[in-house]
Amino acid sequence: MRPGNNGLFIPGPTNLPHPLRFAMDLPLEDQRAPDFPNLTLGLFEDLKRIFKLDGGRVFIYPGSGTGGWEAAITNTLSPGDTVLASVFGQFSLLWVDLCQRHHLNVEAIDVDWGEGVPVEQYAERLAADKEHKIKAVLVCQNETATGVTSDVAPVRKALDDAGHPALLMVDGVSSIASIDFRMSEWGVDLAVSGSQKGFMLPTGLAIVAASEKALEATKTAKCPRCFFDFDDMIRTNKDGFFPYTPATTLLRGLRASVDLLFAEGLDNVFARHHRLAEGVRKAIDAWGLTLCAKEPKWYSDTVSAICVPEGFDGNEVVKVAYARFNLSLGVGLNKVAGRVFRIGHLGWLNELMLLQAIVGAEMAMRDIGMPIDIGSGVGAASEYYRLTAAPVAIEAATALRM
Amino acid sequence: MRPGNNGLFIPGPTNLPHPLRFAMDLPLEDQRAPDFPNLTLGLFEDLKRIFKLDGGRVFIYPGSGTGGWEAAITNTLSPGDTVLASVFGQFSLLWVDLCQRHHLNVEAIDVDWGEGVPVEQYAERLAADKEHKIKAVLVCQNETATGVTSDVAPVRKALDDAGHPALLMVDGVSSIASIDFRMSEWGVDLAVSGSQKGFMLPTGLAIVAASEKALEATKTAKCPRCFFDFDDMIRTNKDGFFPYTPATTLLRGLRASVDLLFAEGLDNVFARHHRLAEGVRKAIDAWGLTLCAKEPKWYSDTVSAICVPEGFDGNEVVKVAYARFNLSLGVGLNKVAGRVFRIGHLGWLNELMLLQAIVGAEMAMRDIGMPIDIGSGVGAASEYYRLTAAPVAIEAATALRM
Amino acid sequence: MRPGNNGLFIPGPTNLPHPLRFAMDLPLEDQRAPDFPNLTLGLFEDLKRIFKLDGGRVFIYPGSGTGGWEAAITNTLSPGDTVLASVFGQFSLLWVDLCQRHHLNVEAIDVDWGEGVPVEQYAERLAADKEHKIKAVLVCQNETATGVTSDVAPVRKALDDAGHPALLMVDGVSSIASIDFRMSEWGVDLAVSGSQKGFMLPTGLAIVAASEKALEATKTAKCPRCFFDFDDMIRTNKDGFFPYTPATTLLRGLRASVDLLFAEGLDNVFARHHRLAEGVRKAIDAWGLTLCAKEPKWYSDTVSAICVPEGFDGNEVVKVAYARFNLSLGVGLNKVAGRVFRIGHLGWLNELMLLQAIVGAEMAMRDIGMPIDIGSGVGAASEYYRLTAAPVAIEAATALRM
Amino acid sequence: MRPGNNGLFIPGPTNLPHPLRFAMDLPLEDQRAPDFPNLTLGLFEDLKRIFKLDGGRVFIYPGSGTGGWEAAITNTLSPGDTVLASVFGQFSLLWVDLCQRHHLNVEAIDVDWGEGVPVEQYAERLAADKEHKIKAVLVCQNETATGVTSDVAPVRKALDDAGHPALLMVDGVSSIASIDFRMSEWGVDLAVSGSQKGFMLPTGLAIVAASEKALEATKTAKCPRCFFDFDDMIRTNKDGFFPYTPATTLLRGLRASVDLLFAEGLDNVFARHHRLAEGVRKAIDAWGLTLCAKEPKWYSDTVSAICVPEGFDGNEVVKVAYARFNLSLGVGLNKVAGRVFRIGHLGWLNELMLLQAIVGAEMAMRDIGMPIDIGSGVGAASEYYRLTAAPVAIEAATALRM
Repeated sequence: MRPGNNGLFIPGPTNLPHPLRFAMDLPLEDQRAPDFPNLTLGLFEDLKRIFKLDGGRVFIYPGSGTGGWEAAITNTLSPGDTVLASVFGQFSLLWVDLCQRHHLNVEAIDVDWGEGVPVEQYAERLAADKEHKIKAVLVCQNETATGVTSDVAPVRKALDDAGHPALLMVDGVSSIASIDFRMSEWGVDLAVSGSQKGFMLPTGLAIVAASEKALEATKTAKCPRCFFDFDDMIRTNKDGFFPYTPATTLLRGLRASVDLLFAEGLDNVFARHHRLAEGVRKAIDAWGLTLCAKEPKWYSDTVSAICVPEGFDGNEVVKVAYARFNLSLGVGLNKVAGRVFRIGHLGWLNELMLLQAIVGAEMAMRDIGMPIDIGSGVGAASEYYRLTAAPVAIEAATALRM
Repeated sequence: MRPGNNGLFIPGPTNLPHPLRFAMDLPLEDQRAPDFPNLTLGLFEDLKRIFKLDGGRVFIYPGSGTGGWEAAITNTLSPGDTVLASVFGQFSLLWVDLCQRHHLNVEAIDVDWGEGVPVEQYAERLAADKEHKIKAVLVCQNETATGVTSDVAPVRKALDDAGHPALLMVDGVSSIASIDFRMSEWGVDLAVSGSQKGFMLPTGLAIVAASEKALEATKTAKCPRCFFDFDDMIRTNKDGFFPYTPATTLLRGLRASVDLLFAEGLDNVFARHHRLAEGVRKAIDAWGLTLCAKEPKWYSDTVSAICVPEGFDGNEVVKVAYARFNLSLGVGLNKVAGRVFRIGHLGWLNELMLLQAIVGAEMAMRDIGMPIDIGSGVGAASEYYRLTAAPVAIEAATALRM
Repeated sequence: MRPGNNGLFIPGPTNLPHPLRFAMDLPLEDQRAPDFPNLTLGLFEDLKRIFKLDGGRVFIYPGSGTGGWEAAITNTLSPGDTVLASVFGQFSLLWVDLCQRHHLNVEAIDVDWGEGVPVEQYAERLAADKEHKIKAVLVCQNETATGVTSDVAPVRKALDDAGHPALLMVDGVSSIASIDFRMSEWGVDLAVSGSQKGFMLPTGLAIVAASEKALEATKTAKCPRCFFDFDDMIRTNKDGFFPYTPATTLLRGLRASVDLLFAEGLDNVFARHHRLAEGVRKAIDAWGLTLCAKEPKWYSDTVSAICVPEGFDGNEVVKVAYARFNLSLGVGLNKVAGRVFRIGHLGWLNELMLLQAIVGAEMAMRDIGMPIDIGSGVGAASEYYRLTAAPVAIEAATALRM
Repeated sequence: MRPGNNGLFIPGPTNLPHPLRFAMDLPLEDQRAPDFPNLTLGLFEDLKRIFKLDGGRVFIYPGSGTGGWEAAITNTLSPGDTVLASVFGQFSLLWVDLCQRHHLNVEAIDVDWGEGVPVEQYAERLAADKEHKIKAVLVCQNETATGVTSDVAPVRKALDDAGHPALLMVDGVSSIASIDFRMSEWGVDLAVSGSQKGFMLPTGLAIVAASEKALEATKTAKCPRCFFDFDDMIRTNKDGFFPYTPATTLLRGLRASVDLLFAEGLDNVFARHHRLAEGVRKAIDAWGLTLCAKEPKWYSDTVSAICVPEGFDGNEVVKVAYARFNLSLGVGLNKVAGRVFRIGHLGWLNELMLLQAIVGAEMAMRDIGMPIDIGSGVGAASEYYRLTAAPVAIEAATALRM
């Protein structure tokens, strides 16, 4: 065991807030107890507030984001259905793969890794699909592999402009509860998240939100399903129970997570993530490096994929950071393997915690010989954080009794 | 909040042992860290020792027992395949339902609830199936709803006697790690368990063991699957990683669980469960009541479903126990709803813990007017426990410095 | 490690409630942080409500009850001062010993172990002490060694009747927050408690309440003191801080403890302890045994010392309970060593938890050959608990959705 | 609640290592259980290894460092005894104050704050004290208020050179288990520590080590004592028990702490503290600031008191750090109030954790207008840490499977 804590700055799981840890450190409980619905019924409602969903339902499965994708697909589509998607990173790629394994016919548009959802091409395809063969349109709101955030609203507009009835499905695994997501306003029909990102919990829950239209689609969907079946959930969830033993520990944690998000205020949560991400970007500038995300409109507020120059290996940065400085960063995946390393900056974080990742990345990059000036990135980021810290706090501090 | 602890005596989740609680109360960790396989590779191997499996593999999914059933089925069978099963309780029933939803053709033999696997009928069907249409035979080793344990070995014998190649699948959710299970000796091809029973953890993991024959069957199995796909797991598990973010917290807990089971010794664990169950049965005799399980050969060592006399409602026993005495018992499900109540007696338990459930059940039964003698059951059970406590401990106690 | 939990039924430490455990399972904190007084200032006030103290102060030391005694004595008395006390158990004895070591002149009245404070003799001595040589009168409200509770109010009356100005000091270590204590109403000047009894926390805090009169006495008190000095505490406590590093973890726990006590309501807490204790006494009757406490007026609601018949050894009951049944009971101390064993029944307890101790004691007594009828005590206690459980709860239970 | 963790860099309490947190997060236990000595007897022995004490004894009290001072003094000295001491910071001052309150005659040498023990003056006084009126010599090994470490060995030499029999007492509260301490080699008779510094635990234990000579001195020592009495401890500790309820939770934590220290190796622990402290000193140089400690020989490896230039207030640095950046630093105390701020760098720390304090201090100093170059200190420290990180780890990292 190495002395001191590991610095965890991967794009999920995130740092576990103390109140969430306590909320889960409970004796196990009877998921059929008559007062169990006191926990669950309010939680279902409050999750809808997190997704900004009116009507519809939120489903909670023991699982992960991948399970959430599967739930979204199998409950609303049938084998042979056409799905419009785009691939610009490892996770948008895997979702397409999952669709194909469930015998969907995926029209997957290949996009450069570092870019986001190709709205124009979506619009063209949708407009051209007069027969409405396309049953669902897939959007990865935040591609975790490249640190690219795509705007969902324009996809809704493309659907509306084409008068197209396809379901709009969004992978919000690494965005929801960290980056603004407006399910009903954007007309999203299915949104997938997990417990281990913006909800700041251990991995173990797939959280899937469905619009009324999505729920309607379950009636004709023919993909076989049982574990992830919406109907079994609806039948039991309405009374606060589950069709099989739920992960009660994580449900208690999720209750505390939602409470914590509301206590900070969702808008404050989003603003905090943006400010923290901006500091990372200041550091990247100061290092003379660039993001994998090609344009500022795509910069992600939850994860930054940082390109390493020719002749260097991003994996080495990650290795050195872990081995020498007990710092966990993210490697590049698939097409960008070796070309980037990633800093996750979501969840329970403040400036000083994140500066650990920045100074540690700086040390690791110098260690493998990259031409990084000592203190450049951590200096730039810390000065940005200093200048943008809430000014009111200074006065409050002076008033504090020491 | 009611003063004092809830007495948790449902057939899972069980009481959480302190060492397992600590093992999970960790900062979150990087599931791609280079030393992460130090945790996982040994765990896969040690789980095989729990299942008594030579060769083959154990898979760990974020999920539950239901997910484990789905994994077993979808990885090894194809739509339209015939499956031989039997229904004698809510869980054997639900497994059949799951198979049907995945478009399998289930020959489900109806058996009286309170009996177990109809080995003779299985043997007949298998012998008659000369074309080997039956691709899998399902056995629920421990029917949690009725407290019935079935012997798996005779089913293997029936298969062998018929020279039948069908896969043998066992639901061991509420038996494995509490009641002896010998996967390779009994020629079991797929065995399903979960984290919240004999493994004494929170709900959240499906644990599925597969024989070499089962792994071979994946090559031709056509049921669509992705989240539960064996191949993705094998490809990544071999290096100690997972195809998507695993529930690392529960993996740490599972490591501690396996350590705890080995420290006690599996045979001692089974013997402890048997002795604890015998005490419950002494109480039931003393109360003048009977088990739902019709014959001693079917008595379960992990859960007892206790029949209430005509004119009484088992649900009332459970309600009163919870509302008045903060004791969680299990209700009767489906066909035996109201006719039984259940005491779960598996996991991290000793005599005095279980005597809480016995005396509490006694109080609840008296409270709804059942003709139960004061102290009868708890007296009989406690005397049985006293007489069967390890005699060596007395001497050790005398030697202890007070 | 033995499977299952230890049953902890000694008269302190008690079972740790989950909310208190969480409250203490925190990162360590800066005891000079400007917002630290947010914790402490309210806690000092709320502790006064627990002691039912108007005016005066409550002091919190890292320490134990013994330290609390020392704080009470050294802050208010001078070497050579006369103190009136009585000895009827190990703890009243040790307090006298502590006074003597601090060079006080103790008039210690010897009383049979099993009886309580000799109010008449106190009254006589006080009336006779025309010169007011007696500077303090000591009362052990609950003698933990014998399970004897003494009424404090009559001692106040004796002082008042004699017009005597001596300080009234009460050892409430095993009573306060479990048995009613009314500091101001009874004119108590110094009351001593600890964290590990009615406050349901780990050992580690001495909690001392002082009346205004006691605070006045510090000005002339000459006993040397520093660690336990009231003045240092007052000077820093008034702003929410401490003269040396406080045990912040236990302070957080104490905050949660006080919240828990208020949430249940002090009167409900006392009533619960009385009812639980009554059940133990029903069991003792049914066993044909007697309490060490000689009269009902002395029966303690927090601990019962149970006499074993001639020819048996109470220590053996305790040894066997621990060695064979993982049950911690209390041994007899000093004069009653071997003649009694003790069941602690205070803190975070409900009926079913305590029935573990009762049935376990029954098993242990049978095990050493005592003529105890099987199920007699646990039957009598459980029936008493059943009959006295809140009737309203039954209806509520019926209304609960199952 | 502010999002993200507080950065705790005061000179105790320190960051709580996870293994120590788990070790204490236990059900409470019976301190008279026959197997309780399994915990305690080994712990007493192993603590001697931490103090590097042959013979003698280590005592563990519920308390704090102040209580430890009181225990050391009252057990070995008598009112009126002369004690030789020196004052060069708040804690050496308070120890003298404590001695005076216990009616000792203290010869306290005033030394500039920023210097350490005046060995030459000690030598002179001892040589001059032909009648051996001086009964004890006090050394504060690490003055926490000024970040000054004094060498203990020369004081021993002064005593030996003078052939003086006085007891040598060392305050090692903020040094022991972090900075080398060699009790027997240096002829120290009493050494005082606490749980919340090098032992990395919550506050709540006073830990006092006594040589055989010190134990001998108890026989004639007349200071009144009871709670802190050595003899009561010796009589019960020898069998593994305590004279009153011990803080079992902290004892479990202390067991884990000692295990953790041994696992790292004491020499490695000291080297880690030195390297971490060196990094802080590199930052201070880069900021153009100086330490309160006037000479390198006095630089403390557990705490740095950093002088702020004329016109600035060290308290403001601490206030701003806490209010704006959620960073806890230490204020200056007494004579150096406002003139310094302090960074505690002891306990469970690694480079990246400590860099939080460095970059946060930098931000706070800039915030109050101090002329500090952006990134200067954190850059210098991080580069020092990078260059001094164990080179072997790089290769190991490359060998790690990613």
